[in-house]
Amino acid sequence: MPDAPLLSLLHIAMEACATLAFAVSGLLEAARKRLDAVGVCIVAGLAAFGGGTLRDILLDRRPFFWVVHADWLWGLLLLCVLAMLFLRAHHFAPTERAMQWPDALGLGLFSASGTQLALAQELPGIVAVLMGVITATFGGVLRDIVCNEIPTALRDHRPYALCAFVGGWLLVLATHAGVPAGWSLVLAAGSTCGLRVVALVTNYSLPRWSSGALPGD
Amino acid sequence: MPDAPLLSLLHIAMEACATLAFAVSGLLEAARKRLDAVGVCIVAGLAAFGGGTLRDILLDRRPFFWVVHADWLWGLLLLCVLAMLFLRAHHFAPTERAMQWPDALGLGLFSASGTQLALAQELPGIVAVLMGVITATFGGVLRDIVCNEIPTALRDHRPYALCAFVGGWLLVLATHAGVPAGWSLVLAAGSTCGLRVVALVTNYSLPRWSSGALPGD
Amino acid sequence: MPDAPLLSLLHIAMEACATLAFAVSGLLEAARKRLDAVGVCIVAGLAAFGGGTLRDILLDRRPFFWVVHADWLWGLLLLCVLAMLFLRAHHFAPTERAMQWPDALGLGLFSASGTQLALAQELPGIVAVLMGVITATFGGVLRDIVCNEIPTALRDHRPYALCAFVGGWLLVLATHAGVPAGWSLVLAAGSTCGLRVVALVTNYSLPRWSSGALPGD
Repeated sequence: MPDAPLLSLLHIAMEACATLAFAVSGLLEAARKRLDAVGVCIVAGLAAFGGGTLRDILLDRRPFFWVVHADWLWGLLLLCVLAMLFLRAHHFAPTERAMQWPDALGLGLFSASGTQLALAQELPGIVAVLMGVITATFGGVLRDIVCNEIPTALRDHRPYALCAFVGGWLLVLATHAGVPAGWSLVLAAGSTCGLRVVALVTNYSLPRWSSGALPGD
Repeated sequence: MPDAPLLSLLHIAMEACATLAFAVSGLLEAARKRLDAVGVCIVAGLAAFGGGTLRDILLDRRPFFWVVHADWLWGLLLLCVLAMLFLRAHHFAPTERAMQWPDALGLGLFSASGTQLALAQELPGIVAVLMGVITATFGGVLRDIVCNEIPTALRDHRPYALCAFVGGWLLVLATHAGVPAGWSLVLAAGSTCGLRVVALVTNYSLPRWSSGALPGD
Repeated sequence: MPDAPLLSLLHIAMEACATLAFAVSGLLEAARKRLDAVGVCIVAGLAAFGGGTLRDILLDRRPFFWVVHADWLWGLLLLCVLAMLFLRAHHFAPTERAMQWPDALGLGLFSASGTQLALAQELPGIVAVLMGVITATFGGVLRDIVCNEIPTALRDHRPYALCAFVGGWLLVLATHAGVPAGWSLVLAAGSTCGLRVVALVTNYSLPRWSSGALPGD
């Protein structure tokens, strides 16, 4: 895996896009719930950094990403201020549609890097995959819990965590097969992101509990 | 305390039954809330392992139980798949009734072992008892929070955490009195479990706030 | 900063008042939600110690305050028992009004000490300020999440976290300017508390999203 400055820059740019998408999801949900300025910043921050922070707590890793790169907290604050100044009702739907794509990128990137961090601690495959899934999805889960909703990721019957799950296993297999870390990351992130894009494009929905399977049906 | 292989096997079998009961409680609540496959697995996992994981985070213990024994994650996954394939609406009520007993076992076992782990870190009695209560009850609390409900353990006026509280103090007293660890564990787990069974059988309900004590009465 | 026994006593007395105010806020919300005895104790405890505990988890500090000073857990338990025995519906509103002032004290004290602890770990200014805000406000956030409400601190458009944010930056600036730790703490805690008192007295409300800015307006 060539590690030229250009590649490194590309990686940072992709992470910034993905984090932006996560933060915007929090921002929009906070706005819908009529939270105040503090609520908007906290929920956007949870959506952007909550998953990685929870993973680091579980893996006992310090310092957190947003402690080392405190600039990102400033960026988040700026984003929230700009949104509160300029966001209008008719921007919500198009923003959400536009954010689906960098969000898919983030799902791939963050789940793959979460899985890789866990593998580096020699954790079992299934634990590493779970850490990847947590990294990518628990920001959204925390966002929804704080906003008093059942987390979308757990109930919308769209493949989201599932894409990260599949990509995570590819990373585990590639790592065990001796593929260099850089390439396994690209493979896993690409597969997860690709699966998510396919799911979005085809509007695929996971099978539901069969009719009559649940009380009250 | 004889530590024969048979006893050790019995201990594992009891823990498996209890964990199953916790996981099933998550599974059923996830199903009632119409969560998707991901939600079912996450909520069942939180219910089964959330309490112990929170305790370990508070006590700064690593690795977590489900990291060392990753087989249990596979078991959980299998359980969720089987439930989604075979569970029908008319199974819910009998399953829940049947699970009350291994759940009481889990309340005893996990609260006693949580208290004992805290005592081993030389924490004060009340902190150790609290850790036991957290171990046994916060899986259910997290399950309910994610499912957007006020946690049952905090509002159903049934002695649940309270049984663990009493059993925890017995463990603290027994430990301070020099009773060997194995026997104190059996004493505490047995008392907690027994109290819970009595509460279930007698349908005992904790006293409520007296009438007129609360606004809106 | 003179560190005479009298000052130290004053500090403890102020912390006790503030912790009492936080615990009472949890107690009252638990009562309103008709939680049982266990729920009252857990929610009061979360409100009182949740913010500091979350900060310590994020900063990887052990032991927690309530582990070293386990007496405070006994005090909390006693408070809950007394409340359940003697609290009546007509006490709720006056208690809440009376608690606003020690609560403002707690906002100042706990946010300033949280920021100072983070600065002692050489964290960046914005991270330290965030830790202060989390210390002072996340007890209430956790209290509201468990009670299945959107956290008040994130939606009531009153300056609360914002006062801690301003005070936190004063502490960061004072520390960088070489002001001794004791005096910076007094400055920051006093400013935060003062701002909150002004906000309460003037009934100040943060600006809202402009009309038409949100969907559904």
